[in-house]
Amino acid sequence: MKEQITNQSIQLFEEKGFSQTSIQDIVDALNVTKGTFYYYFSSKEQLLMDIHLKYIDNLLIRQQQILDNISLSHQEKLTKIIAMLIHDIKEKGSRGRVFFREIRHLKRDNIGKVKQKRNQFRLNIEDVVQQGISAGEFKQDLRADMVTFGILGVANYSYNWYMPDGEVTPDELTAIFSNLVLSGIVAD
Amino acid sequence: MKEQITNQSIQLFEEKGFSQTSIQDIVDALNVTKGTFYYYFSSKEQLLMDIHLKYIDNLLIRQQQILDNISLSHQEKLTKIIAMLIHDIKEKGSRGRVFFREIRHLKRDNIGKVKQKRNQFRLNIEDVVQQGISAGEFKQDLRADMVTFGILGVANYSYNWYMPDGEVTPDELTAIFSNLVLSGIVAD
Repeated sequence: MKEQITNQSIQLFEEKGFSQTSIQDIVDALNVTKGTFYYYFSSKEQLLMDIHLKYIDNLLIRQQQILDNISLSHQEKLTKIIAMLIHDIKEKGSRGRVFFREIRHLKRDNIGKVKQKRNQFRLNIEDVVQQGISAGEFKQDLRADMVTFGILGVANYSYNWYMPDGEVTPDELTAIFSNLVLSGIVAD
Repeated sequence: MKEQITNQSIQLFEEKGFSQTSIQDIVDALNVTKGTFYYYFSSKEQLLMDIHLKYIDNLLIRQQQILDNISLSHQEKLTKIIAMLIHDIKEKGSRGRVFFREIRHLKRDNIGKVKQKRNQFRLNIEDVVQQGISAGEFKQDLRADMVTFGILGVANYSYNWYMPDGEVTPDELTAIFSNLVLSGIVAD
């Protein structure tokens, strides 16, 4: 039931926005009582925090598996991180959009906790870029921090427009975007 | 006064979100009456639509000036469009974030009107990419539509994190991002 409440809420938050969705809307859509909601979550804000933490923790775990794979080049690690974000759109697109759009409705200290994890995800990519520079795999004059924002921009912006069931498959889009941003950084 | 109301509203919409900001909040912040607000705008939604239309119309006009400049290569046109978006962050960052985040609070037919103009902005970029391919300036196997989303992703995502008064100037960021996404598409 906790998962059903979460999934229903994500759908409503995406359609109407967090502020415009009441706990009543959520329980009505599931045909359960408010008591059921409060059995699992103390408030709408706590539910939103739960969505945020699960989302970013899951990304961090899967990112770590990529980072720990010593058989991959730095370029391959970046491609696999882009692939992860693009492939997630099909199953987790709504969750991702709620994650990006609704963070400001969390309490201040919760925003801090989520931002710290988001920053970790970004800094892990920056480390890969920096290591690729040090290893001579990437160009020597790159700014790893700005290149990282560029990579995240290409991947995260696709949550706003990309339709995974359209004519371009997630694998094709990953190839196009990896080629777009990585051709510019790989050393000649 | 109309401009003051608009600017104050943009600031409040960015801080609290459109739904959470009342007309009372706006007039209180400006120390004027609700009558003053209704002299210029029939509703909060109409104000939001005014913000959206002015924002995208202004971008389309300036984009057209770049497109019409026959002395520029296709690569230079793309760089100038990226430069326009990055340089706007300093003066129009808040306006841009309200534009990206709050469109769903417009009425359905207004969303349609704004989306049509947003699509035009995107398709204009796609045309430049396509013309660059036809002219042999860009690689022949590119998908102009996907490359365009990549370029827009890099530029638009920067509205979420870039601080124009920080150590990287808008000119520097434009150079970094143009180099990142254009190295991958220019023909060898």
